[in-house]
Amino acid sequence: MKNKNKKRIFLDYASVTPVDKKVVAKMEQIQKATFANPSALYREALVAKDLLLEAREKIAQKIHAQKGEIIFTSGGTESNNLSLLGVFEKYKTKKFVPHFITITTEHPAILEVFKEIERRGGEITILPVGEDGIVSLKELRESVKNNTVLVSVSYVNNEIGTIQPIHSIARAIKDFRQKNNTVFPYLHTDACQAGLYLSLDVLKLGVDLMTLDGIKMYGPRSSGILYIKSGVEIHPIVFGGGQERGLRSGTENVAGALGLSLAFEIADKMRDKESLRLSKIQDYGIDKILKTFPGATLNGGREYRLPNNINICFPGLDAEFAVISLDVAGISASYSSSCRTLKEDSSSYVVESLGKKDCSKSSLRFSFGRETKKSDIDMLITSLKKIVL
Amino acid sequence: MKNKNKKRIFLDYASVTPVDKKVVAKMEQIQKATFANPSALYREALVAKDLLLEAREKIAQKIHAQKGEIIFTSGGTESNNLSLLGVFEKYKTKKFVPHFITITTEHPAILEVFKEIERRGGEITILPVGEDGIVSLKELRESVKNNTVLVSVSYVNNEIGTIQPIHSIARAIKDFRQKNNTVFPYLHTDACQAGLYLSLDVLKLGVDLMTLDGIKMYGPRSSGILYIKSGVEIHPIVFGGGQERGLRSGTENVAGALGLSLAFEIADKMRDKESLRLSKIQDYGIDKILKTFPGATLNGGREYRLPNNINICFPGLDAEFAVISLDVAGISASYSSSCRTLKEDSSSYVVESLGKKDCSKSSLRFSFGRETKKSDIDMLITSLKKIVL
Repeated sequence: MKNKNKKRIFLDYASVTPVDKKVVAKMEQIQKATFANPSALYREALVAKDLLLEAREKIAQKIHAQKGEIIFTSGGTESNNLSLLGVFEKYKTKKFVPHFITITTEHPAILEVFKEIERRGGEITILPVGEDGIVSLKELRESVKNNTVLVSVSYVNNEIGTIQPIHSIARAIKDFRQKNNTVFPYLHTDACQAGLYLSLDVLKLGVDLMTLDGIKMYGPRSSGILYIKSGVEIHPIVFGGGQERGLRSGTENVAGALGLSLAFEIADKMRDKESLRLSKIQDYGIDKILKTFPGATLNGGREYRLPNNINICFPGLDAEFAVISLDVAGISASYSSSCRTLKEDSSSYVVESLGKKDCSKSSLRFSFGRETKKSDIDMLITSLKKIVL
Repeated sequence: MKNKNKKRIFLDYASVTPVDKKVVAKMEQIQKATFANPSALYREALVAKDLLLEAREKIAQKIHAQKGEIIFTSGGTESNNLSLLGVFEKYKTKKFVPHFITITTEHPAILEVFKEIERRGGEITILPVGEDGIVSLKELRESVKNNTVLVSVSYVNNEIGTIQPIHSIARAIKDFRQKNNTVFPYLHTDACQAGLYLSLDVLKLGVDLMTLDGIKMYGPRSSGILYIKSGVEIHPIVFGGGQERGLRSGTENVAGALGLSLAFEIADKMRDKESLRLSKIQDYGIDKILKTFPGATLNGGREYRLPNNINICFPGLDAEFAVISLDVAGISASYSSSCRTLKEDSSSYVVESLGKKDCSKSSLRFSFGRETKKSDIDMLITSLKKIVL
């Protein structure tokens, strides 16, 4: 009976965040104010239209974009698909085979789209990463060809929290463009994991397309955006009424958009303080885990790492068993990512990409959020001791 | 000042319905119970997974389907796209050109997808309708060819409320399949407008694919389903983590799914009584409008018509001006559909398809919902008198 009332420790914020209570309240308020379809002509619809514009402007401002550069979608996966398939369908012709570049450690919402691009007749290159999880700028530069239309590199890896040098990648791409007097390749980044902790300034990052997801930012479910730099042309992947500048047909979710814009505002306000707070917990956690479990190693480099992520290889551990055992002990963690779990494959191709083959089925991800406290780490280690040793 | 407090009359329920208060409460309750990603392995995720299954089973039951035949999407437009492009991408090869059939009066979420299918190398046929808005079964039968993979006919037209003979279309298609010993063509129906008022029994209807949308059923925004009959194979249009049997990648919206399933339950309970109630208001309205405005004609037949729709041609009227004038008078109505408004085209291709060219810019749609009362019709006619005459 005692156990039932014990508060659980959630360490899987990289998978999903709860909806912020203020966001819930905002959406309720909007739904009471209007339920109209913003495309109609009467008063209720104009109210909805204005609210949608307000959400678009606020989000644009937070990432230093223009309002016309923000497309509302149903989430990160859709935004990624729209970026990649949208560019592919826009530029492929009978004679021109578009070439796409990404890296081995990307989320399935990128890698599976690459498979589809190949199936549709496109050309793809998937670059390796170093032991720290970071792509080699030299290799990336060398892989850009005359038919390369898009490079997609996630801002932060979802499993190991590695931060890619997006700004440097953007610079290398701009160099190529200038030398070859072309607008290609475009640079897309999946920034879903970065939303809460890193700068989302698209001008400083130098990206052409950027994906963000409400469920990773304490925002509404089924909400996301795609930033599309003015001048970048893509083809829709869903067709119909022509909402969102013709790029995302379907009645707009006004309350969702306002909820998402509030989630952006809250994230922005909390960014620096929360990043610092979590990086301290992270440092404490990494040090203490590595000290407690002598064979354990950190997956991915420590320097360029999101402050909310610890991913550890415990040699010989059965990661699936460990996640279930931690669950019984009241701790929610994960091996690889939820999307991999769905495929009933307990191995992590991300960890394997780091050259740590023996670690691919023996690694655990602990990801933090607003409720995470330093004492959670102590509880985690107490439980791990019973499982790992 | 008096005017400001006057209750407005909303007559555009075909465009959008408010979220039922019970649905809002249900979603809040679910969000409090769990925010986890249903694909994860720990307790919170298993709760989410069970809830998602519950929603799927409940919706399946309401339309006489199996739970594995329900795919959750972000709405009707996405469901339509997934049906049509999914079948196209599944069956096109270098040698085989798939052929698709639909009708002229379909929503842009069908017609624009047909354009895309043609762009991607498919073959399309768009059949006319009669003055009553109904497709000729004979013409439909004659247009099915050996390479026809899919026929898409909306259950109910969104502008004029015409109910198509889906069961008879299904029978004609089954005859073709039997004679030719093939599983093609599949039959898809966009049932978004029918959700609240007609039988959604997929077995009785005889459809292979059916689209439904939460926003037309007092359900959550950004929620919809696609029914896919067991054995019908389609290709995804969005790629990633492999959720929804690989057909709709992206983290599932558990609260949205439960909210939608409750919206289905409420609709089911209210269906007969509400249909009868609204058909009386409809009869009253049609009769009174036609009597009050001698030149006016009903667009679409009266017999096979959704009980919540009146669409009237007022010869010589500027429909856009009328909608704005009605708005000033406190009444929300529409010409054609919201999606058309977005394209800044005040003409209705649906009305034009009926052979009523002069009516395409002079027709108004009044659509009813749970708040609509008979007295609203009287108010409408009082306002129309000032605008039409």
